[in-house]
Amino acid sequence: MAASPLRIGIAGLGTVGAGTLKVLRANAELLALRAGRELKPVAVSARARGKNRGVSLDGLRWYDDPLELAVDPEIDVVAELIGGADGVARGLCELALRNGKHVVTANKALLAHHGAALARAAETAGRALAFEAAVAGGIPIIKALREGLAANRINQLYGILNGTCNYILTQMRTEGREFGAVLAEAQKLGYAEADPSFDVDGVDAGHKLAILAAAAFGGEVDFGAVSLEGIRHVTLTDIRLAEELGYRIKLLGIARRTELGIEQRVHPCMVPLATPIASVDGVYNAVVVEGDSVGTAVFEGRGAGEGPTASAVIADLMDIARGHRIPAFGVPAARLAKLPRAPLAKRKGPCYVRLMVVDRPGIFAAVAASLRDHEISMESVLQRGRAPGAVVPVVMTLHEATEAALQQALAEIARHDGIVEPPRMIRIETFA
Amino acid sequence: MAASPLRIGIAGLGTVGAGTLKVLRANAELLALRAGRELKPVAVSARARGKNRGVSLDGLRWYDDPLELAVDPEIDVVAELIGGADGVARGLCELALRNGKHVVTANKALLAHHGAALARAAETAGRALAFEAAVAGGIPIIKALREGLAANRINQLYGILNGTCNYILTQMRTEGREFGAVLAEAQKLGYAEADPSFDVDGVDAGHKLAILAAAAFGGEVDFGAVSLEGIRHVTLTDIRLAEELGYRIKLLGIARRTELGIEQRVHPCMVPLATPIASVDGVYNAVVVEGDSVGTAVFEGRGAGEGPTASAVIADLMDIARGHRIPAFGVPAARLAKLPRAPLAKRKGPCYVRLMVVDRPGIFAAVAASLRDHEISMESVLQRGRAPGAVVPVVMTLHEATEAALQQALAEIARHDGIVEPPRMIRIETFA
Repeated sequence: MAASPLRIGIAGLGTVGAGTLKVLRANAELLALRAGRELKPVAVSARARGKNRGVSLDGLRWYDDPLELAVDPEIDVVAELIGGADGVARGLCELALRNGKHVVTANKALLAHHGAALARAAETAGRALAFEAAVAGGIPIIKALREGLAANRINQLYGILNGTCNYILTQMRTEGREFGAVLAEAQKLGYAEADPSFDVDGVDAGHKLAILAAAAFGGEVDFGAVSLEGIRHVTLTDIRLAEELGYRIKLLGIARRTELGIEQRVHPCMVPLATPIASVDGVYNAVVVEGDSVGTAVFEGRGAGEGPTASAVIADLMDIARGHRIPAFGVPAARLAKLPRAPLAKRKGPCYVRLMVVDRPGIFAAVAASLRDHEISMESVLQRGRAPGAVVPVVMTLHEATEAALQQALAEIARHDGIVEPPRMIRIETFA
Repeated sequence: MAASPLRIGIAGLGTVGAGTLKVLRANAELLALRAGRELKPVAVSARARGKNRGVSLDGLRWYDDPLELAVDPEIDVVAELIGGADGVARGLCELALRNGKHVVTANKALLAHHGAALARAAETAGRALAFEAAVAGGIPIIKALREGLAANRINQLYGILNGTCNYILTQMRTEGREFGAVLAEAQKLGYAEADPSFDVDGVDAGHKLAILAAAAFGGEVDFGAVSLEGIRHVTLTDIRLAEELGYRIKLLGIARRTELGIEQRVHPCMVPLATPIASVDGVYNAVVVEGDSVGTAVFEGRGAGEGPTASAVIADLMDIARGHRIPAFGVPAARLAKLPRAPLAKRKGPCYVRLMVVDRPGIFAAVAASLRDHEISMESVLQRGRAPGAVVPVVMTLHEATEAALQQALAEIARHDGIVEPPRMIRIETFA
């Protein structure tokens, strides 16, 4: 190996950091063969030095303060695997770039909030900012958008971007259990955090979607443009009725080019059972990209975990070792567009609505009148069982309507006598 | 745009060549933004100059002889979109590399037969040899293997690599028609060639598999190592019985690292209905990659056609424009291994066997004895309907057995009285 090694400093030795170190060592020879030079971890930083991480730190310089990695002259690239949108992670990336080091990060929150600024800093420094591991685990989707599909004008992308939510929805469906019970179990198994809101309220998926949209459309990351809705209100009833209607409920992130701008939204969707994404279950992630030349391309794999995330971190290190320099979001940072925001209120599409209704005559006529008044037409309506005087679910699927009209109609319906819960709406996406 | 344009010569203006020219023009501005320089077609060569291809050739130099592209000093990269394992396509690629031009090709036959030699020629010349378009249409699978999954030791990959076969098998299943009828229709629609053997006998899939295996395992392309079996003998009966047993029949290419070496084979498989690849229908391709770090990753998209193939050709041109230099098969050509061949006879796995049997007592006992004599155990057996004295299908699924034992047992069974056709065997792959 004639070329000098790529000297790597790793900040953060949690699951991802320790995993990266393990794979760098286990596959060292193969990686050197492929890169034409050694990928050599030389220094690490983490909170507790003594902790057993299943990987030896022998021969690595130790820093208590991760910022020291950014000033170590014997480091070429800093792998920021600490996490968090601000604080030390952000400081480390900025300082590393200023000091002429490449930065590889798995930090979606950081990129969602400061992606454009970091891309500019990287460009100014003439160094790489790489973040394959920030989205969809080991799936090389950032590379696909920036390189493999670079011939295409991307019209739309969507995906299952949060493994925790997909696991919960899958368990609800296959085990016939409600959200709360599955969440509690997922927390016990370590698949969900003690404070699950980051996952189940769609924030994590939103971070990833904003990053994907920036790479796909060549724009500044605009997390503020993402409308977020999580899966807390999805019930087992909804999941079962969806299946009867030929749909599956998935939490999707969707970024779409429309005449009004770029839509970016995360919310539960009903997708047709025959859509490839409908059968992506458990902790798997999937991203579907629609380009003007390639048509539809689907990428699927494990969305998190030690191995998949390490695979993505090291793919970025490999690119750097090979001398690849791709602008962070596929176009020069100075040319990143401000993506025009298409407001969710203008979205037009079909949806599913579940009402909890006191079973007595006349209520449905009132509901139908409200829909008619907002020019929304019904595709189907289904009342399960009869129970005079008791509360029963009534489920409707509605033809294409604007979000604004829909929300107004539902607000009106919620005020009718005999409607005992706020109406639950789940958007239907057919991706036709 | 400060950097000089990338000057492209296109050889062959069939579907792929004309499509590439169209997309280069339609997305010229976007491509220049992404590459940091113009991707500029400057010259073309094809058989008939006057033919209408839906794209103007104004402003392009015309050559009757494609080899002239290789000597034109005003060309940086030759896109070889002619096809064929030898002849002018091969001569053009060799000459272009010798003359210091990068080569992009969609030619799987050429790479399957001369991939290693061309990779060495490219390395000697210090130029790129890129062939994303040779495998799986627009799916960036070569990039995934060489770059996105480069952290991984690949243990196995498999996929649906021939859209024509997948279309035929899908139509047989969904329309309930036999192979011959669907093939005839596919030929009429232009989905299959007048001489279909290249597709339906597995040759095309074998070419692609050999290329994928080389990129995945860092070896010389070894098309001779691929055992080939096509779909001509798959009947509607097999397809229906497969579904009853919980399987779907797909023509797969499989490359697998085993203790004995690398298995490479193309043949019809029964795959569990729940496997992602089971629901990849029609002209779609899919490739599943299993790496030691990433786990399972799935890539799916259109396997052929003007747009998808142009997307892949231009992705390669984009890499070249951006200055990426990746060894053709992911490792330096001089370091390409001779992949040890694992013989098919040593394959161990379950399978499905269909016998056409005269319905009378005793025949099944003889079949069972033959299996026992070769130490093959049965998982299930199914005779559909009774028709004393007439011919009925008897279907068995067999537990894991070596290919050699299986072939011996089937040869013996074929000689029994009352077995009226050669036994039909379809391997079961669960990828568990």
